[in-house]
Amino acid sequence: MDIRNKIRIGVIGGARPKEKWSQMAFEVGTHIAKNNAVLVCGGLGGVMEAAARGAKQAGGHTMGILPGSSPQDANPHIDIAIATGLGYTRNSLVAMNANSLIAVDGQYGTLSEIAYGLIYGKKVIGIGTWTINGVQMVSSAEEAVKLALFL
Amino acid sequence: MDIRNKIRIGVIGGARPKEKWSQMAFEVGTHIAKNNAVLVCGGLGGVMEAAARGAKQAGGHTMGILPGSSPQDANPHIDIAIATGLGYTRNSLVAMNANSLIAVDGQYGTLSEIAYGLIYGKKVIGIGTWTINGVQMVSSAEEAVKLALFL
Amino acid sequence: MDIRNKIRIGVIGGARPKEKWSQMAFEVGTHIAKNNAVLVCGGLGGVMEAAARGAKQAGGHTMGILPGSSPQDANPHIDIAIATGLGYTRNSLVAMNANSLIAVDGQYGTLSEIAYGLIYGKKVIGIGTWTINGVQMVSSAEEAVKLALFL
Amino acid sequence: MDIRNKIRIGVIGGARPKEKWSQMAFEVGTHIAKNNAVLVCGGLGGVMEAAARGAKQAGGHTMGILPGSSPQDANPHIDIAIATGLGYTRNSLVAMNANSLIAVDGQYGTLSEIAYGLIYGKKVIGIGTWTINGVQMVSSAEEAVKLALFL
Repeated sequence: MDIRNKIRIGVIGGARPKEKWSQMAFEVGTHIAKNNAVLVCGGLGGVMEAAARGAKQAGGHTMGILPGSSPQDANPHIDIAIATGLGYTRNSLVAMNANSLIAVDGQYGTLSEIAYGLIYGKKVIGIGTWTINGVQMVSSAEEAVKLALFL
Repeated sequence: MDIRNKIRIGVIGGARPKEKWSQMAFEVGTHIAKNNAVLVCGGLGGVMEAAARGAKQAGGHTMGILPGSSPQDANPHIDIAIATGLGYTRNSLVAMNANSLIAVDGQYGTLSEIAYGLIYGKKVIGIGTWTINGVQMVSSAEEAVKLALFL
Repeated sequence: MDIRNKIRIGVIGGARPKEKWSQMAFEVGTHIAKNNAVLVCGGLGGVMEAAARGAKQAGGHTMGILPGSSPQDANPHIDIAIATGLGYTRNSLVAMNANSLIAVDGQYGTLSEIAYGLIYGKKVIGIGTWTINGVQMVSSAEEAVKLALFL
Repeated sequence: MDIRNKIRIGVIGGARPKEKWSQMAFEVGTHIAKNNAVLVCGGLGGVMEAAARGAKQAGGHTMGILPGSSPQDANPHIDIAIATGLGYTRNSLVAMNANSLIAVDGQYGTLSEIAYGLIYGKKVIGIGTWTINGVQMVSSAEEAVKLALFL
């Protein structure tokens, strides 16, 4: 397991996405793994789970930074579950632990993570998400991951 | 000092606003105090300081929830300084401790606080700030505080 | 309300103390208020509530730094309730926001707060609590507050 | 990399231990790895680094939960660095993310982690550290890890 020096790409998005965005998140996860990067996410359901599933199926590694106080809360596709007990306040830590972020769909939680990504000076790429000055909007998973890798 | 049962209005905004927004924040603070509410903010400079100064000059009470680990970091118009040592992650706590929020101007930090306000189901009012679905945009301090009080 | 420049004394201790320690905490709160200091505590029951009740009955001011995400969780004797949503992790913030700490009785939560007080270089005084190198043990509320005031 | 279902043993201790305790921490790390468990620590120097070095040399996996906001702060023997930006407040998260804890030597930071371990109901084993009711004191690394594995 040599994940220490790999690039970490955060995938952020809603817990209850439409099927279309779930599929998109899965593809984002797939491309992250194929490019030898580590997927970082919030560890729970929806976009987080779909992306982690995609990354695992493609042989990648996944980290989940959880709001609750038990690593067991993580979805089944998370290799490394980190409990924080911080509730929504953990959103800051998701952004902090990624080199760049890809937002897929999403509601206010995603918006907070986009904001933290930009606060921390990370590149933030968006697919079907909040239009925020500073976020690079793209339309495919491949394009998103490509941009996310050029740090 | 009976502040326990007063409404708390959060004022969020940039640390380095243009004079126009500084003046607006001052007026927001004034109206908060005149309406017997408590001002909650991030405790530092810019919009936070201008709003706190307005509230104090009008005889009100002010709370500052700070990123650093010393209550001494607060601007001079904060009555109750709370140190968190959480850095930017404290933005979540600013939103958590207000009954409603007024955003004036602001950059990504303000965006994260708007997002947390909406995550926590608080009413969020904006003046010259990010246009986000769910935020009620107004153009005067008086109007903003009026809306913020009708919870 | 001029609490900005007052000394803050933290009172830490168990949520379910024996009557003897509840009474001691009440007296600690009384002496804090009589000496014009502000009481800081975790905002909940037991020693925290008894001390806050003592401080309020003696005309003092009280702050409660809560584990939950609602200021409403505070006991009725807290003037200034601060929600953190951090769970037990908020214990660090109780110590951070006091100039010195008085521990009365207490279990592991109190031990963590004693440890944080010492980490942050605060004076820590103990009454019937953990015997820890660095904590000054005393046997009366008056003595504890006297020591806590000589910073 | 199948670390999801492995037992996690936290190793806590001082940042500037005497050589004797550094060596002990190294051996603790070695035994953790040999028993197929994952080492969790605070990610920095001293006992944390010695234990992580021991675990890596024995082919194990290591997690470091850092006080700062950059994963780069981790010592060179950490596979999975998690930045928190919480300062000393992150000590709670070290305890939260381990199934059991082994304290070697240590000062007040270690005491706070022992306290959190006990707050969270984790088994805490001590070697040359604070004598606290609830901590099982042992004198060898092998014994400590053996106890830590029987959850």
